[in-house]
Amino acid sequence: MVNPTGPLRIAAVLFPQFTSLDVFGPLGAMNSLSLRFPMSISVLSHNMDPVSIDRNIINGVSVGDRANTASPYFTEYVLPTHTFDNAPDFDVLFVPGGSGTRNNTATQPAVDWMTRVLGDSEEDWPQYVLSVCTGAALLARTGKFGGKNATTNKASFNWVRSVQGAQEINWIARARWVVDGKLWSSSGVSAGTDMTLGWIEHLHGRNQSETMRVMMEWNKLEQEDDPFADYYGLT
Amino acid sequence: MVNPTGPLRIAAVLFPQFTSLDVFGPLGAMNSLSLRFPMSISVLSHNMDPVSIDRNIINGVSVGDRANTASPYFTEYVLPTHTFDNAPDFDVLFVPGGSGTRNNTATQPAVDWMTRVLGDSEEDWPQYVLSVCTGAALLARTGKFGGKNATTNKASFNWVRSVQGAQEINWIARARWVVDGKLWSSSGVSAGTDMTLGWIEHLHGRNQSETMRVMMEWNKLEQEDDPFADYYGLT
Repeated sequence: MVNPTGPLRIAAVLFPQFTSLDVFGPLGAMNSLSLRFPMSISVLSHNMDPVSIDRNIINGVSVGDRANTASPYFTEYVLPTHTFDNAPDFDVLFVPGGSGTRNNTATQPAVDWMTRVLGDSEEDWPQYVLSVCTGAALLARTGKFGGKNATTNKASFNWVRSVQGAQEINWIARARWVVDGKLWSSSGVSAGTDMTLGWIEHLHGRNQSETMRVMMEWNKLEQEDDPFADYYGLT
Repeated sequence: MVNPTGPLRIAAVLFPQFTSLDVFGPLGAMNSLSLRFPMSISVLSHNMDPVSIDRNIINGVSVGDRANTASPYFTEYVLPTHTFDNAPDFDVLFVPGGSGTRNNTATQPAVDWMTRVLGDSEEDWPQYVLSVCTGAALLARTGKFGGKNATTNKASFNWVRSVQGAQEINWIARARWVVDGKLWSSSGVSAGTDMTLGWIEHLHGRNQSETMRVMMEWNKLEQEDDPFADYYGLT
């Protein structure tokens, strides 16, 4: 259970070409929760520049890989509150996914920082590590999750299993989300919100998580419900 | 059907204390769509300052009404791309909701601008007007939607019906979303994403909308599915 004497401090990691719904579904549920329980959040990036979901530009430079050739002007920008170097202390590490996870260079600052703050063993980790979608690939690259059960985006399942460090992780194909100790990992995009509601239930009970779900008019899938594993032929 | 000769231009309206999932669920689906079809987006606010979901601060000033007393430091910031005064031309007006819709002063620039751009009759409107959640209350205040069928957030249903201009609108209690001519309006928060997938089906067919839904691993409710109308006793 959470420490009742202080706010639960969330640290959310951003990187170029993150998927906005990976972030704002879970943080939307947490924002509603923050009306009832003391919480704080820091939104982290390698610098204080606005972080773009745009597939055409990474750190101000046009890119060809996984670019959006159909629509050169489709983006939104989210502003970090801190850099990795001046991140405040936190209890919960939140790592979203997105096509940007495939760009090793652009995500290296996030991976380096997580590698540093995760320490040598699970005891050193923050209270919770939450990954959504291909955010699990960034966690894998830290090399800190060997032996853990985890899941990830179902369309990108085989790619995530191929990244550096991922071979040491026990990937669960059929699960909306997976819990193993401090590590909570969800399937793709929307699954992050289901997991977050499950995590809220774990923290504060079913009545609270149901209240958040109903406020969001969210159509929840439970932990074992995974129609997308079937869709992508992962069995 | 959309104009096949140019990008479909989205204009998304922001205001302080918007609900981030109202925005980033629908724009997430549109972002995926933009990989296949030419689209562009402008994110509008009354000025170029970052727009906060924070319930404690509006336009840099601390507020007491609907403030988050449990968690003074829980916010994210989204950066506009244009102001209302220099908004580019657009085909689709997108209006999210959030607790900020209850602050008439903070939302007046958005309402004034929409009143101006909507013109005198539905013929003058852009091709589509999409509202999510209590974004319908901002549309109501323009006075342009008299006689239209619409829906809105189910927890705030009676409040929305009470705002200026809302008495002229025919509010549908039981609907995930409602379509009436150019006006598409959804129920609360997550319903906006269901509606957007329905709108993508209308634009490009079921195969495309299903592709977007599966990419997002989204558990869709259909237009007539509304468990939240029952939950809130709206029949």
